[in-house]
Amino acid sequence: MTLGSPDFWRRRRVLVTGGAGFLGSNLCHALAGLGARVTALDAMLPDGGANPANLEGAGVMLVRGDLRETELHSLCQGVEVLFNMAAQTSHMGGQRDPVADLAINAVAQVRLVQVMREVAPKAVVVHASTRQFYGRPLSLPVDEFHPVNPPDANGVSKWAGEQYWMLENRVLGRPVVSLRLTNCYGPRLRIADARQTFLGIWIRRVLEDAPFEVWGGSQLRDLAYVDDVTRAFLLAAEQADRPEVAGRVFNLGGAPPLSLLELAHLLIAANGGRGRFETREFPPDRAPIDIGSYHADDRAFRAATGWAPMVPLEEGLRRSLAWYRERLADYAF
Amino acid sequence: MTLGSPDFWRRRRVLVTGGAGFLGSNLCHALAGLGARVTALDAMLPDGGANPANLEGAGVMLVRGDLRETELHSLCQGVEVLFNMAAQTSHMGGQRDPVADLAINAVAQVRLVQVMREVAPKAVVVHASTRQFYGRPLSLPVDEFHPVNPPDANGVSKWAGEQYWMLENRVLGRPVVSLRLTNCYGPRLRIADARQTFLGIWIRRVLEDAPFEVWGGSQLRDLAYVDDVTRAFLLAAEQADRPEVAGRVFNLGGAPPLSLLELAHLLIAANGGRGRFETREFPPDRAPIDIGSYHADDRAFRAATGWAPMVPLEEGLRRSLAWYRERLADYAF
Repeated sequence: MTLGSPDFWRRRRVLVTGGAGFLGSNLCHALAGLGARVTALDAMLPDGGANPANLEGAGVMLVRGDLRETELHSLCQGVEVLFNMAAQTSHMGGQRDPVADLAINAVAQVRLVQVMREVAPKAVVVHASTRQFYGRPLSLPVDEFHPVNPPDANGVSKWAGEQYWMLENRVLGRPVVSLRLTNCYGPRLRIADARQTFLGIWIRRVLEDAPFEVWGGSQLRDLAYVDDVTRAFLLAAEQADRPEVAGRVFNLGGAPPLSLLELAHLLIAANGGRGRFETREFPPDRAPIDIGSYHADDRAFRAATGWAPMVPLEEGLRRSLAWYRERLADYAF
Repeated sequence: MTLGSPDFWRRRRVLVTGGAGFLGSNLCHALAGLGARVTALDAMLPDGGANPANLEGAGVMLVRGDLRETELHSLCQGVEVLFNMAAQTSHMGGQRDPVADLAINAVAQVRLVQVMREVAPKAVVVHASTRQFYGRPLSLPVDEFHPVNPPDANGVSKWAGEQYWMLENRVLGRPVVSLRLTNCYGPRLRIADARQTFLGIWIRRVLEDAPFEVWGGSQLRDLAYVDDVTRAFLLAAEQADRPEVAGRVFNLGGAPPLSLLELAHLLIAANGGRGRFETREFPPDRAPIDIGSYHADDRAFRAATGWAPMVPLEEGLRRSLAWYRERLADYAF
């Protein structure tokens, strides 16, 4: 499967923040394969999605630096496309230290906005955003007009970070696109624990032949396989100068919605029938961030760009398990 | 006119942040008159709404301190009601220095949230929010489900600050109400320039017998007289434990909508026919923050609390002019 247009990407200068993380590193691999000149910036925070193994073999330059403080001018100079994937994405982290959460997701973004304005005023920006700040859906599926009701501090800061970028479009005309992602999965996801998504720890447990936990079970999710997400980011950048695309926020969904219980069974089936799980109540101390069911109405993005997910869930789960089976030592620590 | 219920307020410990500003100081006067024990906190930033003359004769304690750094524990200890009026509200200020804007409106609010959690976990909080982050209305009148599309950095930070307080309700059950205000006017408004609202400088110019400028002219606004706004804040606090009120954001409007040109004529009429103005195009460099017409659908707040504005626009303008006529030296500097 071709993930993007080589004619567009060949020799293009691309900066990927959060480039050693789950989505960022997958983008880096794809971009390098398309002939782009890629720099990955990553703070390599221990609780986040970054993993040194994620960029193995990608052939991109990794700069270790934190958007809150690292010198950005030289990094941004000459950049033609910025994929802005760096974020604190942990619900609990945001609740424990909302000041740090805001510093990472909003203050640091303002810094990056200002430097990009100075040294790369024409660059395209594709921002990785999240369904998370919609909170508990008032109706399903969730489109881009759904009210924003963050269930936690992290949702507030992620929304603010997105909006600073959208302002660059509204006020200065920069081509900016924001993709509000559903739960994504696939190779290079953090599986050590549930910090990036519950599915990470499920995959680990299944491969270790240990039981995983399903909290609740009836909640619906529309999981997006990482190759489909990567393709969406590439398409968004390639088309960011079209009026149907520029300056817009788009929800990005994935596979048809299914319940967590159905997903648990599919995961075990994808593992050749090996695996087991226990269901438990959603823990009371996390109830405020239990958003119930979610699935995206992503028709706007599909209509604007022609994108559609191509990897069925069963296939994506099989590929993920096969990938991690070879690499458990690098990812399950 | 009684602004609130003396039985509720007598001897109640109240903290008003931004207490020397326009709305904050009017609240302080009302609260002191109702027998509350009031502390006003204000950073007295020179570009904001604070004015030492605003608290003259109020009989409240003014603490000069900036929410970003001042010691808050002793101030918040024992507080039963917090009116949270402190903010950077300048459009242009936010665009010039978005980091400071975010520090004032969001980071400092997180600080206050955390201290209030520690030392005043049961206190009622009424937060002063703004119509501003709705951006250019997609339809009129604007209700609380209107999408949030901030036209500037200040709108992003004000929304974030509001949401951190709403989370205290959603996650911890604190009685919190947020009032999203339209353009407010009346005594103690900043009239030295247009930093707080365009109507400030209009009032000053009319009283100085100088022409004022109307940018555009056909835009609709629903101006709220400060006594009506003060009453809304008091009502919100008095009723914050009712399920119809707790944890809600409410738009707050004012007089029936009229155009800026009509308003200009009314102001001159309220000044006994003395006054003149010039119309000019909205300056191109401010076009991105020209939101066109706005008026609030505030039926939700009216239905929940019984509030309705009581001061007609003509009367409010007359009272404002009379008040400033005696105090030009204190306000037009």
